[in-house]
Amino acid sequence: MSSDTIRLYHATASPNSRRVRIFLAEKALNVAFVPVDLGQQEQHSEAYRAINPRRVVPTLVLTDGTAIGEVPAIWRYFEEAHPARPLLGVGPVGKALVVMWERRVELEGFAAVMEGVRNAVPRLKDRAIAGSHGYEQIPGLIDRSKQRVANFYGDFDARLTEVPFVAGDEFSAADITMLVTVDFAARAFEMAIPPACGALQRWYDKVAARPSTTA
Amino acid sequence: MSSDTIRLYHATASPNSRRVRIFLAEKALNVAFVPVDLGQQEQHSEAYRAINPRRVVPTLVLTDGTAIGEVPAIWRYFEEAHPARPLLGVGPVGKALVVMWERRVELEGFAAVMEGVRNAVPRLKDRAIAGSHGYEQIPGLIDRSKQRVANFYGDFDARLTEVPFVAGDEFSAADITMLVTVDFAARAFEMAIPPACGALQRWYDKVAARPSTTA
Repeated sequence: MSSDTIRLYHATASPNSRRVRIFLAEKALNVAFVPVDLGQQEQHSEAYRAINPRRVVPTLVLTDGTAIGEVPAIWRYFEEAHPARPLLGVGPVGKALVVMWERRVELEGFAAVMEGVRNAVPRLKDRAIAGSHGYEQIPGLIDRSKQRVANFYGDFDARLTEVPFVAGDEFSAADITMLVTVDFAARAFEMAIPPACGALQRWYDKVAARPSTTA
Repeated sequence: MSSDTIRLYHATASPNSRRVRIFLAEKALNVAFVPVDLGQQEQHSEAYRAINPRRVVPTLVLTDGTAIGEVPAIWRYFEEAHPARPLLGVGPVGKALVVMWERRVELEGFAAVMEGVRNAVPRLKDRAIAGSHGYEQIPGLIDRSKQRVANFYGDFDARLTEVPFVAGDEFSAADITMLVTVDFAARAFEMAIPPACGALQRWYDKVAARPSTTA
């Protein structure tokens, strides 16, 4: 299926979609946004499954019909095609360090919030893991996720006493995932930044003031 | 801490270490291998925590002392520093598709096996998640992980009826993670490739014959 424009299939309330929207805003890139109605389960429709068999948003569809799913993959496409305003690091070491820090934020923070939410929300009773297969919720994961998010906040508060941004001296994709994680945890998991995490809160106030974060 | 040579801290039996060793062998790159004795809990030592606060192997340490953890980050460093024999794709679209497919294999296969093993093995009773914090095992995750691995085998068997390698026409890092996942699942989780997955088995036989896989 070819098209004149690159299209991003996304949902406004989807934290993973927001990771891509902020990235695009930071790089000042425009694509056509196509909403996927998660409330109406549109991600499970035959049409959407044809472009993303994992049935998750976001998905980027290029003009030749190539579909790219997974946030780090979509980011990689835009960073390579439009290297200006780099968000995935500069040079071999810089690129590796952004991948490392962004991944740690995702594994220890973002994924923990997501796991807690998916194992708690009644409407996801049989959909505890995103994707094409159903899995039942495991209630024990809710508390474990909360412990993980608390530890994540403490660990990254310590990190941000040492460096201005998550991956070091420059704003990067690691900060995008961190910001989205904090907002997601506060909104869906009732875990805002704890008062003891002063460095993390100062980092948050600075990054949340960037115009891209309204994307 | 500076050094004359790049060092990879790894463990022979660690599947994540093997992902890096095969990558290096495919690119014909040499680094100094420094063993970390997981049986003796050396990953929790003060010396190792100083280079990797997540206390996991592998970690790459550059000659200026910069420490790079997380497999995709270590790969990114080598791919950018040594672009010959590319394993992370070519061009913006090719690179994005390798990131996507490698990540799907990791999330749906590798991570599922790891979760099952870590929540089952008696000596990891209070260490169900790798990292610097202790978490108790949740027995319900063992069965859920087995379901996930079974679905993963079915999904990627279907994929490999359509393409010769996981990410498409070329061998890539996605095949490395797939091979390591299959061997890990067979060895530690008693889940070899099922007889019904003929395309996956043919892919396995072809890839396992590459000299790099003994690394």
